[in-house]
Amino acid sequence: MQRIRGRMQLYIPPAATQDTGVETWNAIRSRRDVRDFSERPIDDDHLVRILDAGRRAPSARNWQPWDFVVVTDRAVLVELAKVFGGASHVGRSAATIALIAPILQEGLELEYFDLGQATVSMMIAAADLGIGSGHAAVADQELARKILGHPDDRFCAHLVPLGYPATRPLFPMRRPRRRPFAEVVHRGRW
Amino acid sequence: MQRIRGRMQLYIPPAATQDTGVETWNAIRSRRDVRDFSERPIDDDHLVRILDAGRRAPSARNWQPWDFVVVTDRAVLVELAKVFGGASHVGRSAATIALIAPILQEGLELEYFDLGQATVSMMIAAADLGIGSGHAAVADQELARKILGHPDDRFCAHLVPLGYPATRPLFPMRRPRRRPFAEVVHRGRW
Repeated sequence: MQRIRGRMQLYIPPAATQDTGVETWNAIRSRRDVRDFSERPIDDDHLVRILDAGRRAPSARNWQPWDFVVVTDRAVLVELAKVFGGASHVGRSAATIALIAPILQEGLELEYFDLGQATVSMMIAAADLGIGSGHAAVADQELARKILGHPDDRFCAHLVPLGYPATRPLFPMRRPRRRPFAEVVHRGRW
Repeated sequence: MQRIRGRMQLYIPPAATQDTGVETWNAIRSRRDVRDFSERPIDDDHLVRILDAGRRAPSARNWQPWDFVVVTDRAVLVELAKVFGGASHVGRSAATIALIAPILQEGLELEYFDLGQATVSMMIAAADLGIGSGHAAVADQELARKILGHPDDRFCAHLVPLGYPATRPLFPMRRPRRRPFAEVVHRGRW
């Protein structure tokens, strides 16, 4: 079994620790939908970590129904933003990860479930580094294929634009805009 | 905006920090499929945190298509394990979270995508606390409904059994059983 050397780590809020990462519960609570990105680029080391978090995600029988095309070129990002009406933030992102998946006749629910698992793994890994993310759908599959170059038996399931927030840095949210805990959670039985 | 007071935190490997949590990247790398659970119960505070991580997960237009029924009673867990041939580990779990979702005529892919997002959020929050998790499908919906009591317009999409690993504690995996990074990730274009 692998060993990690003990070391001292100073805990300071996420906004100031974008390079070292934060405690998991803070990263989970800091992740929010970000669509306005600053000009700051993402270090390649960080991009690699975010992508690796997706690669490590669980999937049914470990089938890993995903490939990730990562785009950082501004001109390409601006083109990619045209695949969906609500994807303009792709053009402003520092990097966008396109999730490419097999075109299936059946088992699409399972595939989407696993793509969701990979997506949130990447989003939490990004939040850990102070990097925001915002999901974008893909309507124009033909344009997506022209830009991304994936083979005919795959499609672009969705995009994950990434970047540092233009305004409010990521910070653990005390009251996320969600249904109340007591409504969502049922103890023992509905 | 909420402030968190700076504090010193000693970094030690996850196996020894089950109560305080670990750095995000370690939690993400520690999560693995766990099906053999120890007898150790899960503190309610920790269960609440894991459930809250699911509640906080992103979803399409924030529709949050989920309810969580959490089961900790041994006799009920043993019954619940019968909903699927591969769900015997539910009976051995310290707690199992049943994900209940609306029965839809269309948009099932989107629903499953978001359930995947909630599931991994919970699994990473669990791994942060040294708690293992293992996905289980549901075949017998009638039995699941009888045990869990959800209304007729919902179904049990799947189960997330939780517990401390019986043998190897969670630990960041250096080489997860996954396709190689260079195969999964494409730079700029496929």
